[in-house]
Amino acid sequence: MPRYKITIEYDGTKYCGWQRQPGQATVESVITEALKTAFSQDIEIFGSGRTDAGVHAVGQIAHFDCNKKLNGFEMMMAINHNIDYNENIAIIDCHEVSENFHSRFDAKMRFYEYKIINRKARLVLEKNRAWHIPNKLDLEKIQEASKYFIGTHDFSSFKDSECQTKNPIRTIKDIKITKNNDLILFQISAKSFLHHMVRNIVGTLYLIGKNKLEVEDISKILAAKNRTKSGPNAPACGLYFTKVEY
Amino acid sequence: MPRYKITIEYDGTKYCGWQRQPGQATVESVITEALKTAFSQDIEIFGSGRTDAGVHAVGQIAHFDCNKKLNGFEMMMAINHNIDYNENIAIIDCHEVSENFHSRFDAKMRFYEYKIINRKARLVLEKNRAWHIPNKLDLEKIQEASKYFIGTHDFSSFKDSECQTKNPIRTIKDIKITKNNDLILFQISAKSFLHHMVRNIVGTLYLIGKNKLEVEDISKILAAKNRTKSGPNAPACGLYFTKVEY
Repeated sequence: MPRYKITIEYDGTKYCGWQRQPGQATVESVITEALKTAFSQDIEIFGSGRTDAGVHAVGQIAHFDCNKKLNGFEMMMAINHNIDYNENIAIIDCHEVSENFHSRFDAKMRFYEYKIINRKARLVLEKNRAWHIPNKLDLEKIQEASKYFIGTHDFSSFKDSECQTKNPIRTIKDIKITKNNDLILFQISAKSFLHHMVRNIVGTLYLIGKNKLEVEDISKILAAKNRTKSGPNAPACGLYFTKVEY
Repeated sequence: MPRYKITIEYDGTKYCGWQRQPGQATVESVITEALKTAFSQDIEIFGSGRTDAGVHAVGQIAHFDCNKKLNGFEMMMAINHNIDYNENIAIIDCHEVSENFHSRFDAKMRFYEYKIINRKARLVLEKNRAWHIPNKLDLEKIQEASKYFIGTHDFSSFKDSECQTKNPIRTIKDIKITKNNDLILFQISAKSFLHHMVRNIVGTLYLIGKNKLEVEDISKILAAKNRTKSGPNAPACGLYFTKVEY
């Protein structure tokens, strides 16, 4: 049976995250319903990773099997055609892949971006699309502190208390933080992340930028392996799942 | 009486444009109402230019007089505080200016951007924020053709039939067209524009990119001074009023 790999864009604002949950609007359930309508069969889709309520994606990946043989473009259009226009979800790319391909287990690198708008005035075009921080942040200090996260560490201090993973060791390949007018953009990549890890890192760097923490504190917080030592969980609306490499 | 210059950002999707109209939601009316609530007086505001329904702004300028003396930051916050959070409008900058300053008559250069997303899949994050064109456009041809607009011309072929200006001569200082992934961004500047001029130029360049017109046709269309010779009025949702220079 052909296996298809899809790339998905969504505005997460009105969804209870990626994962299917009974009675809730989720990205996975909208796509599953579209597949059911298109092909009159129950098709299970497998996402490369879950995203929380309010988190966006421009490059979420999923795969599914379907006994209907279509080329990638036809499959993409068939699904999109069955997603209501009021939904904020689209399949933006689709290819048939080997039947051994697995969107989650084969992922070699995951890429996230986090947007802060650092200005006094409320957000308009970036409303629900970025974290609004009115007070000035010390960007250089944030950039310097971010380097302490790169490499392999025990990220227990940066995982959600409900995170079920037993192994808290993760390897961050890179963190890049750039500023363009009011926008502070965080770009972060790792093979995998713990639950809330990106948002907890951003929340901790926010405290650095506000001078509530010092650059050297990052090492101490990592060493503490205690979630209460790190910063707040940055709002979901600033987070974008941008790419998966296989 | 102090005169204030404000910079305004808005998502134009749900507004009937900038200008006040009885019984319609417009950007000007929302700000006027906020000023009335803040200062218990009728304050007239003067925009640097009108924008149509659905057109966005990140740098619209307006001025108004108010007998209340505040610094720019306080005035900005006072207005924003009285704009309902469900409105997609914010004052993003404010300064007291000379009582001779006029947002419209003193403008030396106006800057617009137009966004096309050129991809097969429907829009999600750019829904209502860009013109979605599924079929491939010839970018180089568009760029070449755009140069014909630069300079002083009679733009009768590119003005709306309801445009009331008697003088159709305008001087385009620059048009820059760049591509970044799916996004084709038009940046265009002139001291002033005719009604629908930017959107008619983009709509004509769209026909060039689709090979429905040739590069040299631009000269002929300009010479014709006839709106029926140019391309379609590009959708309002792709247009952004970005800056005014004084």
